[in-house]
Amino acid sequence: MAHDYAGRLSRAGEATGRSELAGLIVTPSADLIYLTGYDPPPLERLTTLIVRPGREPVLVVPELERPRAAASSAGELVEIEAWRDGDDPYQTVAGLLDPNGEYGATDSMWASHLLGLQGSMAGARFVPGSRVLSKLRCRKDSGEIQLLSRASRSADETFRQVIREGLEGKTEAQIADALATRLVKTGHDAALFWIVGSGPNGASPHHDPGEREIRHGESVVMDFGGRMKGYCSDMTRTVAVGEPSEELKEVHEIVREAHEAAFQAVRPGVPAEEVDRAARSIIDDAGYGLAFIHRTGHGIGLEEHEAPYLVGGNGELLQTGMCFSIEPGIYLEGRFGVRIEDIVTVTETGGRRFNTTPHEMATVR
Amino acid sequence: MAHDYAGRLSRAGEATGRSELAGLIVTPSADLIYLTGYDPPPLERLTTLIVRPGREPVLVVPELERPRAAASSAGELVEIEAWRDGDDPYQTVAGLLDPNGEYGATDSMWASHLLGLQGSMAGARFVPGSRVLSKLRCRKDSGEIQLLSRASRSADETFRQVIREGLEGKTEAQIADALATRLVKTGHDAALFWIVGSGPNGASPHHDPGEREIRHGESVVMDFGGRMKGYCSDMTRTVAVGEPSEELKEVHEIVREAHEAAFQAVRPGVPAEEVDRAARSIIDDAGYGLAFIHRTGHGIGLEEHEAPYLVGGNGELLQTGMCFSIEPGIYLEGRFGVRIEDIVTVTETGGRRFNTTPHEMATVR
Repeated sequence: MAHDYAGRLSRAGEATGRSELAGLIVTPSADLIYLTGYDPPPLERLTTLIVRPGREPVLVVPELERPRAAASSAGELVEIEAWRDGDDPYQTVAGLLDPNGEYGATDSMWASHLLGLQGSMAGARFVPGSRVLSKLRCRKDSGEIQLLSRASRSADETFRQVIREGLEGKTEAQIADALATRLVKTGHDAALFWIVGSGPNGASPHHDPGEREIRHGESVVMDFGGRMKGYCSDMTRTVAVGEPSEELKEVHEIVREAHEAAFQAVRPGVPAEEVDRAARSIIDDAGYGLAFIHRTGHGIGLEEHEAPYLVGGNGELLQTGMCFSIEPGIYLEGRFGVRIEDIVTVTETGGRRFNTTPHEMATVR
Repeated sequence: MAHDYAGRLSRAGEATGRSELAGLIVTPSADLIYLTGYDPPPLERLTTLIVRPGREPVLVVPELERPRAAASSAGELVEIEAWRDGDDPYQTVAGLLDPNGEYGATDSMWASHLLGLQGSMAGARFVPGSRVLSKLRCRKDSGEIQLLSRASRSADETFRQVIREGLEGKTEAQIADALATRLVKTGHDAALFWIVGSGPNGASPHHDPGEREIRHGESVVMDFGGRMKGYCSDMTRTVAVGEPSEELKEVHEIVREAHEAAFQAVRPGVPAEEVDRAARSIIDDAGYGLAFIHRTGHGIGLEEHEAPYLVGGNGELLQTGMCFSIEPGIYLEGRFGVRIEDIVTVTETGGRRFNTTPHEMATVR
């Protein structure tokens, strides 16, 4: 898929000006991929795109990577300037910028690079680049929505295949392997994470799957995702291995209702925190408020976690094209956990789910 | 392999004091793995280990990751303090620190986190954490040297197997796949990179392997590596597909001599830049100085690139236990490139190579 990099670069320059910043300093990251398609690894040698309002962008690269950068999609879009091992790349960047300006720096830029820039530009100020770029990146165009939707369908199919094969008697690590393998077989370029929390381990939202064997009568939280043509999937379901207990059924039903309430709250113009509040109030009212120990969701796109964050205190208004997870959960330490997660996009009339797996708790072998 | 995390934490605290820093702020990275074995992904939610001279270390984590952190190797080593989604984690960290101190921050810490810390501690100053930690991490203990040596042997075996199967008629991408697959089959946990530059593409040191078919009479630069039990491999050889031209033989021989000169320069007490100079002077004298467009090498360990860097201007003295690449190269734009890379460790009597693949240019099918 050919993304409109030239348009994105131009809009980034305009948005930088509107934010009253003198420029953006974009190091290897989803920001750089979004703006140019160029995807070198973030390393100790500085590679950075300079975006300034009303001026042509410049890509500063280590000399040995000049040929690779020139051959990449960035080569036709931007001027390339190289520095050599032993030179000070921060001086090279400073030479392109107003020494007293305020700049947005890629959120995941290495601290060593930011400190280098701060040292070379003592009069400059720096803010997180997401202040400008997340406003652009968070509203997906139709091509991006198609890619996110396809990635979610592959995650749905992964889940279907893995639960069909049964969980009982297998280890968490074996199920994690099966999820990762199936994500790739059903269309992902790479699996990125595979949380499998069985029984009491389900109460650890980011549990590392281990050698624990899954037993009859337990619940299992599976939270997994990957990247397909640059865009991410992320879904969670909690299943019962054999007949669930009354308590598990009850807790699962509360989470299901919280998820539905959050989903129903999604529409343009609603503050992100309202979606969190919708889920949280259901769980609070059921008496499990202290057991819902994380935000309701996060944006998704080129990164697994990006803006907008559905969290108390975030008054950012939802807009059409935003895509994010809805993933309330209840975690009962030493006993079990439940989480249900879909990826949702904002349309003019409300939310639309990319995942199609039912929310009712599946009972599996 | 059980690493001595408690000893490393204690030495890090002492080294912090000797560097006249008030503390280290260590986010998810090789630094955190080195000090605690804990390896969460670096994300927008702040996870950070606080190391202060003469005080117990504290690990600050997001509430939802508290169970995972407690279950990890860090759980027994350090106190854990959690913050909740919606709270300000930078205030949590600031509460543990002297607001006017000077701190080392993990080099790869996200800029958004560093800016958050700078905002919460306006009187504090920050420097790259490598100023303290690279002094510890760069000298490998016997267990680490064993792991690095094993990873290099697996890379050697990978190279042997791939060239035995022949290159002619295959694409760069196919050879890259073969390298990545063989790295894992011969013992790596993951392949990390696989540069294959055929013919003129060899002149791009970090070339992305593509669909170009390798032809008789060309040279091919293969630079690849991965991670085995946490420790990295990285090797490069340049091979001739069919009988090499006189010019290729001559350039390869110059690079081979430069490599050997650099290797012979390795011993305790020699400045890192001397090793670079030894390689560079051979290439300069042969008239190819401008075509050697990168430093001679980089340290290796938990990361592919770490201290010490063998580069002009780095007067750091070599010490026993340091491990690094030696990888001079000559790049002739539009024609071909040559690079030879081994991983070497510093012993009391000089350098010792982990790689055993001969330096003479192999002629392959």
